[in-house]
Amino acid sequence: MSMTNDDLRLIATTVRTLSLDAIQRANSGHPGMALGCADIAAVLWGKFLVHNPEDNRWANRDRFVLSAGHGSMLLYSLLHLFGYGITLEDIKKFRQLESRTPGHPEHRVTRGVETTTGPLGQGFANGIGMAIARDLFAREFNGGSEPVIDHRVYAIVSDGDIMEGISSEAASLAGHLGLGHLVYIYDSNGITIEGSTDLTFSEDVAKKFEAFHWHVQRIDGHDFDEIERALEAAERETARPSLIIARTTIARGSASMEGRCESHGAPLGEKEVFATKENLGCCGDDAFCVPDRAYQACAARTAEMKDRYDRWQARFVREITGDKKALWDRYFTAPAIDALRQKLPVFDPQKPIATRAASGKILEALFREMPNLVGGSADLGPSNNTLVKGYDETGRGTVGRNIHFGIREHAMGSIQNGIAYYGGFIPYSATFFTFMDYMRPAVRIAAIGGLQAVYVFTHDSVFVGEDGPTHQPVEHLAAARAIPNLDVVRPADAEETREAWLHALGRTEGPTLLALSRQNLPVLRSNGSSPRDLARGAYVLRGTDGDPDVVILASGSEVSISLEAAEILATEGIAARVVSFPSWEIFDRQPAEYRMAVLGHGIPKAVVEAGIRMGWDRYAGVHALYITRDDFGESAPYKVLAERYGFTGQGVAERIRGFVKKKTRK
Amino acid sequence: MSMTNDDLRLIATTVRTLSLDAIQRANSGHPGMALGCADIAAVLWGKFLVHNPEDNRWANRDRFVLSAGHGSMLLYSLLHLFGYGITLEDIKKFRQLESRTPGHPEHRVTRGVETTTGPLGQGFANGIGMAIARDLFAREFNGGSEPVIDHRVYAIVSDGDIMEGISSEAASLAGHLGLGHLVYIYDSNGITIEGSTDLTFSEDVAKKFEAFHWHVQRIDGHDFDEIERALEAAERETARPSLIIARTTIARGSASMEGRCESHGAPLGEKEVFATKENLGCCGDDAFCVPDRAYQACAARTAEMKDRYDRWQARFVREITGDKKALWDRYFTAPAIDALRQKLPVFDPQKPIATRAASGKILEALFREMPNLVGGSADLGPSNNTLVKGYDETGRGTVGRNIHFGIREHAMGSIQNGIAYYGGFIPYSATFFTFMDYMRPAVRIAAIGGLQAVYVFTHDSVFVGEDGPTHQPVEHLAAARAIPNLDVVRPADAEETREAWLHALGRTEGPTLLALSRQNLPVLRSNGSSPRDLARGAYVLRGTDGDPDVVILASGSEVSISLEAAEILATEGIAARVVSFPSWEIFDRQPAEYRMAVLGHGIPKAVVEAGIRMGWDRYAGVHALYITRDDFGESAPYKVLAERYGFTGQGVAERIRGFVKKKTRK
Repeated sequence: MSMTNDDLRLIATTVRTLSLDAIQRANSGHPGMALGCADIAAVLWGKFLVHNPEDNRWANRDRFVLSAGHGSMLLYSLLHLFGYGITLEDIKKFRQLESRTPGHPEHRVTRGVETTTGPLGQGFANGIGMAIARDLFAREFNGGSEPVIDHRVYAIVSDGDIMEGISSEAASLAGHLGLGHLVYIYDSNGITIEGSTDLTFSEDVAKKFEAFHWHVQRIDGHDFDEIERALEAAERETARPSLIIARTTIARGSASMEGRCESHGAPLGEKEVFATKENLGCCGDDAFCVPDRAYQACAARTAEMKDRYDRWQARFVREITGDKKALWDRYFTAPAIDALRQKLPVFDPQKPIATRAASGKILEALFREMPNLVGGSADLGPSNNTLVKGYDETGRGTVGRNIHFGIREHAMGSIQNGIAYYGGFIPYSATFFTFMDYMRPAVRIAAIGGLQAVYVFTHDSVFVGEDGPTHQPVEHLAAARAIPNLDVVRPADAEETREAWLHALGRTEGPTLLALSRQNLPVLRSNGSSPRDLARGAYVLRGTDGDPDVVILASGSEVSISLEAAEILATEGIAARVVSFPSWEIFDRQPAEYRMAVLGHGIPKAVVEAGIRMGWDRYAGVHALYITRDDFGESAPYKVLAERYGFTGQGVAERIRGFVKKKTRK
Repeated sequence: MSMTNDDLRLIATTVRTLSLDAIQRANSGHPGMALGCADIAAVLWGKFLVHNPEDNRWANRDRFVLSAGHGSMLLYSLLHLFGYGITLEDIKKFRQLESRTPGHPEHRVTRGVETTTGPLGQGFANGIGMAIARDLFAREFNGGSEPVIDHRVYAIVSDGDIMEGISSEAASLAGHLGLGHLVYIYDSNGITIEGSTDLTFSEDVAKKFEAFHWHVQRIDGHDFDEIERALEAAERETARPSLIIARTTIARGSASMEGRCESHGAPLGEKEVFATKENLGCCGDDAFCVPDRAYQACAARTAEMKDRYDRWQARFVREITGDKKALWDRYFTAPAIDALRQKLPVFDPQKPIATRAASGKILEALFREMPNLVGGSADLGPSNNTLVKGYDETGRGTVGRNIHFGIREHAMGSIQNGIAYYGGFIPYSATFFTFMDYMRPAVRIAAIGGLQAVYVFTHDSVFVGEDGPTHQPVEHLAAARAIPNLDVVRPADAEETREAWLHALGRTEGPTLLALSRQNLPVLRSNGSSPRDLARGAYVLRGTDGDPDVVILASGSEVSISLEAAEILATEGIAARVVSFPSWEIFDRQPAEYRMAVLGHGIPKAVVEAGIRMGWDRYAGVHALYITRDDFGESAPYKVLAERYGFTGQGVAERIRGFVKKKTRK
């Protein structure tokens, strides 16, 4: 029993009228896309997408990504019709405070929303991450008599998504990997905010995607039969990702706004909404009206899907047994951090090692323990120490736990988000810290969406050296710390690096960034502190017998330099406490008492960090001594730069000596 | 008299040996690309590129961009050979502190270097900005009997450049605009850091660029004749940009490292360098050896170009006369700020206006006064108020002062840099402040390179409202302020907006960011302060008769809210000074005395800003009251959010009342 075209028309009309009413009531929103894509959405949701509104985390559900997130009312209308618990009351609260229907879809806010979208191009790359996760998952768990994972990933993408560079990056990789269960429908309406896409966008999109090795079709996006045939053909194509270029009319069905850019981002107005509803065969005066027949058609589809769901559950019980079941459960169980620690390397205090290298060794051990840890670098694997030997790698037509992202940082970040959205996996990505800038939009969405993602950002200061200012992060620690819900951790040595990884793996409520050194660092321990104190964000690494004369706050590679300085100062009778301060965010979550005990009260403070001062005043105060680097770096060997900028034991000791004397004179 | 293939071979060999020696001596660098591209570079510089080493700012010189900036030794070798004043001593100091030969090319450091490159994709888009500037410039000044501007823009781009999304954005726009004097040579060596490009990169690059409407050729990048013929064909093509896909072997000419990814980013080692020099027909023991014949060949080419230069100067004198000469001079003269101010709007204190709308009116007036002010938005023109009516716009096959960048923020930023590198123009770009993240790498390079660029970033806080957290900047002010040499200015009203623009236009040593409101704001003036005080970064907008009880520091839309609060508090006997604080960077450059006078000493402080607190501690201290937004925003009408987060006159007054009372009790 399949939906008739009449049913589809009814669903499309309902999507249109609900969207119009909600946007008009909110007096804010984007009607053009919701109207223009309603026909496509009706066919996709009415006849193809397989899901179960009662179990929205079903592992084998088809994923649906609305990359053009501004068309949120399209999605909310569908979620309402298909019984995801979005009520008409919710829809009436579109774009209102604490509603379940925010302006752009938010994965954490609304049941059934798979991705947080809005910033263009993000959803496009998220879907590719989901498809990678899907293929990894299928490879792990299929292979019995029947496949357990055989779903698809669908997305609706817009002109804006296609224009953004991230989508070219992601599409190129998707074509390379041969993600054959990915079906994207491109809502080609020819309209952007500034007017016709002809203003700036005349590329041959079909040819471009063919160059990326995609399967490309072109259709009329308002013809149910064409849409259906194209989706069927896309289903049959399992070796390449599919792009269906659907020519649509923005604001389709509106009384007088069809094809006009003004319909993109603003309500159509009471009059036009009335006229449009009449035009669509509805009563212009009825608001938020859903015909019973629309509910019935969707319920019939849901029942049909429920059968498939039940059959899948039976299949799952047959196929996923014994070791396979245990493995499956490991994907969906948070790692036991203390047990995991036992399996990780302990580092020899006699052997200096760069924290990026330590991270590489830790990652190797983690790969053995956690089958669901996957990721890679944007072509800097050998420098980031993120490629784990002995495990499979992505390649032409194949996925692997080691993902070669290519020189595509932005897509990497959003693909990582897609893998995290998918569920079951913990994804990591890697590049030089300075190139975090290339993927910042993706990091921000991971933080908004509360995704568990790990960033391995190496070469974390001017100590990059010869490569010079373009490759030396100076403001990046500050800029990363600025992002809410992102834990930034800059370990001081190999031992802290292990703990930083464990922190990241234990943190399910958001992403964690590891800032790691290029250069070798001593493995530190003293005064009975433990690297596990990293879990407090900051701790006293070197105490003093009595009250200290100065408290030095330092992170990463500057901690060992500060310890050196403290030893020098000790010989001169200046008692320096050294605080290893790997993470502001973690420290801020500690009780005030603890924080006060670490920082001390009324004791002169010095901050030593090879980055800008910004933000440290909160911990050290305006009158502290700042040994920081507040301008871009220079191209030179890193030891030369360390001398020049004063980041040596002697250099720091000298500055602190003068500072303490001045304070004492006062 | 043209160079023979023997001459070309000699130049290529010299580029190779100089690069090898310099990298080996520095024990750091990227030999693979310098060797692999030496043949292409020899033909391009030996027979095509037209320039004058004695006048490296010649307006009609061909521009050369080394987008693959890691091949810097290639460029330094050429600059040495062609007499740009780079000596062998300079080359021996490759990658050393304060040398003229830093690790990656830096536009401000080395004469003859047109662009700061290294971060991949940047140079690719910079060249497109240069070509846009070239066409704008040609359109303005050609049209007499002979064209005054008839040069080309050349670049060498790498696999990494092509993989980065920014290049797809920029290439799509370049093809759309029909930039026919752009010639890119793609060094397709099939190797990246992680290994063969086959790992991640199998797209059909030729087809992709054809889809972007480029003229595409494929050649053997080591065959002088093929390279020459392809460059000739590219010269003949004047309606489309040209891409020459040159198949090359990385580390070409090396004894045993040809085609190996290990040659990309590390010295080859003494032994291999010796063997390679022998292999190239040189003496293995000779370091930094340049045959006289190589100098002679280059000098002959330079003399030939000098003739062309002299003929151009004569042509210039004939063609550019009278009004045209006056216009030309306006391009190359910094604007007289005070005179300019007289031409700009003054805003009615009775009429609230969003600072983005005020900016739009100011920009209109500026367009009339400054023919060299060009720019546009990434498809948000109507929201950013950046499209100036009555002036020409870019379109298919045509450039205009109003540039429609399309939904391509990253390319926009780097194209803007290219226009700034070109000289004569002051470029601006625009998007929502939250999407600065998409173009952050370009902003950073503008700051490193000291480029005069203006960013018009509107919708500058959670007061974006309904669009929700993905569209609401909260950490962006902090993250922007973190970038060294970027002036961030957040004007409080329309009058300050005018002054902010004037600041940006007067600042030639780096970029300026204007953070502007979506919502209407009152036009403020009181206590004899002047909007021109913006030039001091912060100033007392509302003073008090005696010492204030509290000093409120606020920026942008929170200034008027703070004034409201101050009025409320005044009725209760609490004297509040209100400081409008549009720019930290400008304020930091003021004398300590002034700064102290504005901030006050020992007076309780409150900070009111609809963004994160980070960094404000430096001005207000740890014990200040912070009325900030330290988490992501929410989707709701902005007035609802203002209430919720306490950004109203009443809300601020209430918080300050409690704060002052607590302080007084102490």
